[in-house]
Amino acid sequence: MKQKLVETITSRDVDFAQWYTDLCLKAELMDYSDAKGFIIYRPYGYAIWENIQSFLDTRFKETGHENVYMPMVISESLFQKEKDHVDGFAPETAFMTTKNQDEQEEKLIIRPTSEVLFCQHYAKIVSSYRDLPKKYNQWCSVVRWEKTTRPFLRGKEFLWQEGHTIHRTEEEAKKETLDMLQIYENLGKDLLAIPFVTGRKTEKEKFAGAEETYAIEALMHDGKALQSGTSHYFGQGFAQAFDIKFQDQDSKIKHVYQTSWGVSTRLIGAVIMVHGDDEGLVLPPYVAPTQIIIIPIQSNKEVVQTATNQVYEDLKKAGFRVKVDDSNKSPGWKFSEYEMKGVPVRVEIGPRDLENNCVTITTRHDRNKVQIKIDELVEKMPNVLKDMHETLYQNALKHVENNTYVANTYEEFKTLIEKGGYIKMSISGEEAELIIKQDTAATARVILIDEPLITTVCPVTNKQATQTVLFARAY
Amino acid sequence: MKQKLVETITSRDVDFAQWYTDLCLKAELMDYSDAKGFIIYRPYGYAIWENIQSFLDTRFKETGHENVYMPMVISESLFQKEKDHVDGFAPETAFMTTKNQDEQEEKLIIRPTSEVLFCQHYAKIVSSYRDLPKKYNQWCSVVRWEKTTRPFLRGKEFLWQEGHTIHRTEEEAKKETLDMLQIYENLGKDLLAIPFVTGRKTEKEKFAGAEETYAIEALMHDGKALQSGTSHYFGQGFAQAFDIKFQDQDSKIKHVYQTSWGVSTRLIGAVIMVHGDDEGLVLPPYVAPTQIIIIPIQSNKEVVQTATNQVYEDLKKAGFRVKVDDSNKSPGWKFSEYEMKGVPVRVEIGPRDLENNCVTITTRHDRNKVQIKIDELVEKMPNVLKDMHETLYQNALKHVENNTYVANTYEEFKTLIEKGGYIKMSISGEEAELIIKQDTAATARVILIDEPLITTVCPVTNKQATQTVLFARAY
Repeated sequence: MKQKLVETITSRDVDFAQWYTDLCLKAELMDYSDAKGFIIYRPYGYAIWENIQSFLDTRFKETGHENVYMPMVISESLFQKEKDHVDGFAPETAFMTTKNQDEQEEKLIIRPTSEVLFCQHYAKIVSSYRDLPKKYNQWCSVVRWEKTTRPFLRGKEFLWQEGHTIHRTEEEAKKETLDMLQIYENLGKDLLAIPFVTGRKTEKEKFAGAEETYAIEALMHDGKALQSGTSHYFGQGFAQAFDIKFQDQDSKIKHVYQTSWGVSTRLIGAVIMVHGDDEGLVLPPYVAPTQIIIIPIQSNKEVVQTATNQVYEDLKKAGFRVKVDDSNKSPGWKFSEYEMKGVPVRVEIGPRDLENNCVTITTRHDRNKVQIKIDELVEKMPNVLKDMHETLYQNALKHVENNTYVANTYEEFKTLIEKGGYIKMSISGEEAELIIKQDTAATARVILIDEPLITTVCPVTNKQATQTVLFARAY
Repeated sequence: MKQKLVETITSRDVDFAQWYTDLCLKAELMDYSDAKGFIIYRPYGYAIWENIQSFLDTRFKETGHENVYMPMVISESLFQKEKDHVDGFAPETAFMTTKNQDEQEEKLIIRPTSEVLFCQHYAKIVSSYRDLPKKYNQWCSVVRWEKTTRPFLRGKEFLWQEGHTIHRTEEEAKKETLDMLQIYENLGKDLLAIPFVTGRKTEKEKFAGAEETYAIEALMHDGKALQSGTSHYFGQGFAQAFDIKFQDQDSKIKHVYQTSWGVSTRLIGAVIMVHGDDEGLVLPPYVAPTQIIIIPIQSNKEVVQTATNQVYEDLKKAGFRVKVDDSNKSPGWKFSEYEMKGVPVRVEIGPRDLENNCVTITTRHDRNKVQIKIDELVEKMPNVLKDMHETLYQNALKHVENNTYVANTYEEFKTLIEKGGYIKMSISGEEAELIIKQDTAATARVILIDEPLITTVCPVTNKQATQTVLFARAY
């Protein structure tokens, strides 16, 4: 065999980065491609993304959003219309060229994000307040020429969704920005079992061209933070640059208010690094491509085959994502294989259990084994999954709580940052952020909007503290 | 208003090409982008594609296929491994370049199709007969640098799915090729109401690198054919070029047998040109993003509002894709607007109808109006849609039957081809195809596999006829 599935992976407390890479490959989530920095999303990894897509797409549509598809290229002059935006993305842009291209033709940038395409289209199709709001979303891949890449976390191409909306009033656009942030927070709570911390980005960290950027941040097992999604309020900046105007009910011509928001396949990286352990991936049950793996023991026995088929059919009919592995590998090999792949529930069906009309189920996250009566299995399974989801969420929440610190002095901050985790500190502003980043490599994750000041003076600059910020070293 | 929705479009019998373009824009299916040859898929057009995706994706998964995502770029050396393939695609390739690219690095081709990426990955992950078959599919966009482009029919970028499978035996791979062709044929019959003609492509017309190419062909209203999807049997050609080998049960090392198959957003063009009329788009009910549009008449009256809400809720609960237009545009304006957009069923709810507990429904394809009792509406709607789907299919089938001719002589062929439609003729082979194309611009659509020879001698070359071929001028 060229590929051995069941090998031990590096322990995550020995070398977290190596553990992560080992797991991505050995759980068959991805593979490297010939082109440096571009990865292959293998079926098991892509299926996780499909479940995330399905969760979000349903909620986007329920809240009145429509999907579109914009070209993957942007003419250079269009891209350069909004100054902050071009400054933010220009260093990473890639171009599309051909042998047959007319030399006179403009350069084509491969989209790193599609704000400008939506802006140009909106300017064309909107003329009256009756045309508003427009709430469009797009599922696609984007290209950013990153120097260092890591599977799912940073790549030259990644998959994402980008929502772009325009509104009649500031109030409505601001509400949209926060509503979408809420949907992302729910994605964490209800599907990924990740307790995202949400808040506003500092001026320094906000998106190129945005007035306000909100983010969901997750804390990985190693104490580093991962920005997992963002929602931007643009005000009228892009609308002015791209001339997106409408005639309001009062007959006056006005510019629209705009938002954009997105999450990417980076979320797969978050799931791996929040829940995974030394045996491999641990998938929360609602996002898992396979929720239940059935492994017959002594599968040559007819009684085992009959029970296996019955249990499979019953679970499938009840709507669970279930598979049987009746290959001729040993049960021990299979156990390791599905632990590596993080399948939430394993059902063993063997002759001894069957004598008592039972099967043995093992939950992946705690490796807890229990016997269950066959005729109670389908009925009990929803609670098994629900308890598992809840436990994973609570464990992740405890990890956040146990690794969130408060710094009253800069010395305290410097000591705490070495432990990993989040540190709350009240700072004066960008000047402090720059010093902190230089000294400690920590960055401002979010401004904690409803938190009072910890100190009235910024411990870094000794100037007046203006905001309480959550810091961390981040991916 | 910058855009007027309800304008008359060019009559399709006056200028079919102009009718098509008018309709694409005015039904709001697409818009042009800044980058020449790249289009914007607007919400209404993209929703048609989403319904096609949903139909196919379900059937792909039911038949054991898994989705993956490969990089959008291919290194030049990888692309050049299979000679026929590179000859077929090289003239249209586009490249990805960056300012930050290492001069030493290889050129990156933006995928025009992804055979070689799947081949390389399969070679890496397959080693035993136990690993077979692998049946992968990918939803993505591809880039081909076409000189002349038309919305949905030919563009520099288009959306599609590409399936790539590898098998242990020739028999299994050939079965897969035809099974997928069958799924495409069912897509026509059950979703798009298009009677595809299926058959094998001639040696001249087959896919670059394939041993056999099968296709679904549709006949447009103007008598031109549109290749709407293909399924290829590759034999072991790519497997040898890319060294995709496995150890079989008999311990021998063998090359796999391979297939690929795909359909694209071109299908949207087929739907438009098969069913559309001078009032605009006509959408078959099962692929229509909105199946029923409710238009209240005198919507300021409370009785109308109450009935409108009730009918909307009932239809929605019953699972129909239904919308209400209670905007302050005139009913006549709205009628034209939804006719242009091809919404299958219009439900008018007005005070006069309500006196008799009725509503008026109008079916788009025949503009037939009937009164229906409100409490029978939900119950009757499935049959209204079913009848409409069946009628559209039968109309399209009649169009094919009425425009399919048999040519016994080349003179006959040349006369018939001017009428438009399909012509069956028995030919000697590629030599005849080349002459026919040169003389008449008609091309071989498919070889009709089970059809007997019409003449024993080829009317074009006077050599022995070997196959009966369906010819047409094509998009």
